[in-house]
Amino acid sequence: MTEVVVPSVPADLDPDAIRTRIDEALAHFLDGRLCAIGQDGTIGELAQCVRDFVAGGGKRLRPVLSILGWQAAGGDGEVPEPVVLAAASLELFHAFALIHDDVMDDSDLRRGRPTVHRAMAVRHAAAGPSTAGRLGNGAAILAGDLALTWSDELLNSAGLPPAQLSSVLKLIATMRTEIVYGQYLDLTSAAREGENAAAALTVARYKTAKYTFERPLHLGAVLSQAPVGLLQTLTAYALPAGESFQLRDDLLGVFGDPATTGKPVLDDLRQGKPTVLLALARERATPEQATRLSGLVGRPDIDQAAAEQVRRILLQTGAVDTVESMIKERYRQAVSALRQPTIAPAARTALAALAKTAAWRNA
Amino acid sequence: MTEVVVPSVPADLDPDAIRTRIDEALAHFLDGRLCAIGQDGTIGELAQCVRDFVAGGGKRLRPVLSILGWQAAGGDGEVPEPVVLAAASLELFHAFALIHDDVMDDSDLRRGRPTVHRAMAVRHAAAGPSTAGRLGNGAAILAGDLALTWSDELLNSAGLPPAQLSSVLKLIATMRTEIVYGQYLDLTSAAREGENAAAALTVARYKTAKYTFERPLHLGAVLSQAPVGLLQTLTAYALPAGESFQLRDDLLGVFGDPATTGKPVLDDLRQGKPTVLLALARERATPEQATRLSGLVGRPDIDQAAAEQVRRILLQTGAVDTVESMIKERYRQAVSALRQPTIAPAARTALAALAKTAAWRNA
Repeated sequence: MTEVVVPSVPADLDPDAIRTRIDEALAHFLDGRLCAIGQDGTIGELAQCVRDFVAGGGKRLRPVLSILGWQAAGGDGEVPEPVVLAAASLELFHAFALIHDDVMDDSDLRRGRPTVHRAMAVRHAAAGPSTAGRLGNGAAILAGDLALTWSDELLNSAGLPPAQLSSVLKLIATMRTEIVYGQYLDLTSAAREGENAAAALTVARYKTAKYTFERPLHLGAVLSQAPVGLLQTLTAYALPAGESFQLRDDLLGVFGDPATTGKPVLDDLRQGKPTVLLALARERATPEQATRLSGLVGRPDIDQAAAEQVRRILLQTGAVDTVESMIKERYRQAVSALRQPTIAPAARTALAALAKTAAWRNA
Repeated sequence: MTEVVVPSVPADLDPDAIRTRIDEALAHFLDGRLCAIGQDGTIGELAQCVRDFVAGGGKRLRPVLSILGWQAAGGDGEVPEPVVLAAASLELFHAFALIHDDVMDDSDLRRGRPTVHRAMAVRHAAAGPSTAGRLGNGAAILAGDLALTWSDELLNSAGLPPAQLSSVLKLIATMRTEIVYGQYLDLTSAAREGENAAAALTVARYKTAKYTFERPLHLGAVLSQAPVGLLQTLTAYALPAGESFQLRDDLLGVFGDPATTGKPVLDDLRQGKPTVLLALARERATPEQATRLSGLVGRPDIDQAAAEQVRRILLQTGAVDTVESMIKERYRQAVSALRQPTIAPAARTALAALAKTAAWRNA
């Protein structure tokens, strides 16, 4: 793999420093919401649950990308408060998306803790398993809805000038439509067995590349009054970077270390999640391998031994190697898009580093 | 019961005429969304599902109340397009709320048709009952999310002046928070058995009176630059009118005719929905009646004969009579609030008629 030299990043572009400001903004906003509720214990437990979810982890990738988008379009020096708040609102949106996603996938763990619907089911365990499960799902749907409401509230009260707010709202509407469509394609493609790698890549583009990379960058760029040309350049960076992020996710979902990823390693296989990785393996499998794959993947009771068999087939068919090459190729495309002179040089370095982390992280 | 003389309403205040304009605005917006999707069949089926849900029925109560709020605050003559579009956006919000509500309550029917999650499960029946059920729920959560996105899009693109849009967005955030809290109280109170009538009335206030009556009226009034005093007067009308609407709903949920209401008459009892009606019956039941109630209400397999026993207890304890008196009392309060001279006279008549329908409808 070609090594990319990542020069040191100026202090004001330090993603860790950005992350700290985002975290402060989120904590301030969420504390305010909790305060407003006052003494109502029942309502408080739902609000608390959203706060804990947001405070409990996450890479703040989307807010960081927003700030980088702002800088890429020429934003300079101290990041203005409205830009920080608008960027932070994406993290609350993300909480909404993840909480609902976990209900839909019926996942047990998220960020190393029980998912919201599982935690809420435990809270209502006294009602018996079936009622508790229903209450847990219902409470998680509402917790997600609350996170979304708060996301909009944070954005709307960020103090953006009306014309900027109006542009951002349009962008957010596009982003929300894309993520819903991506999720729907993802959800239903599990039922369309035999879907090919190209179709799986479309899902990855909608669900991840556009949602996690492209739209957050655009949001920040719009707040720096970026011309259309720069938005296109950011897209040329974001889509391959985002796809490599998702392709890595697919590998981590099967080969990752749950202690690092915070997600059970069997979830993707148990759900038969229609990843590019699996689609490639299916396309190349011998008849015998294909039979074993369709017998093992998607089994609700899949165990470590069965998962090990699947892993072997993924390696033997060369699917893992191909996905690694796809990641590398996309990383190169992303970095090459950054060479456009329209991108402010300081942001370029941080974006290159981010693409690298996206492609070769272990969590 | 005191008869309220309802004089004929001027043509431009005719709720039917308002409803027609709302329906046209919704159809236009939804057609545009469907068009934008173009040929993608999979995404199209989700969008189609939201469109069909919205087109398939509903009283348009919240948009109509918004327009009446606009008129109550002095809005006169032809209703401007931005006001119609902002009002119509509430119907898309309502679609979101209902679709998610039906998932949480696991209801079979809505508006006389299968609920979205049931219809979506049928579409994926080939995947086997358990997967189909999960896909149905997931698809309905996404359909609801899409309806909400569209609601925001319709509102944001309604053409409201920035200052008005900003006020409306604040109001919508409040409304959304209230409905989430109300739903959560409702969801969890089923698990807090023995909750009293006062607690059930709090749920009704959040879930219905504020969401269905107060906030829509405020939205319209804000678009007519209503002073704070008028908003308070509208609240004084809306809360009792909305509570009587919910109390009637509770009665219809047990005694209504499914052919008229479009909802299975056993749903509320099967779910043990914590209504004021049931709470009153529990408070007044003899030990023997109390035992029978807790044995029957909330049983997943409740049948017509069991429901008939519950109905008898609701009548014998006087719970039905009390709820009828509460409805009447609240109707009187609502109409009395309309006597405030700040309310434009023409709107007064329509609002009185609406309070009457809310209290004594059969669907």
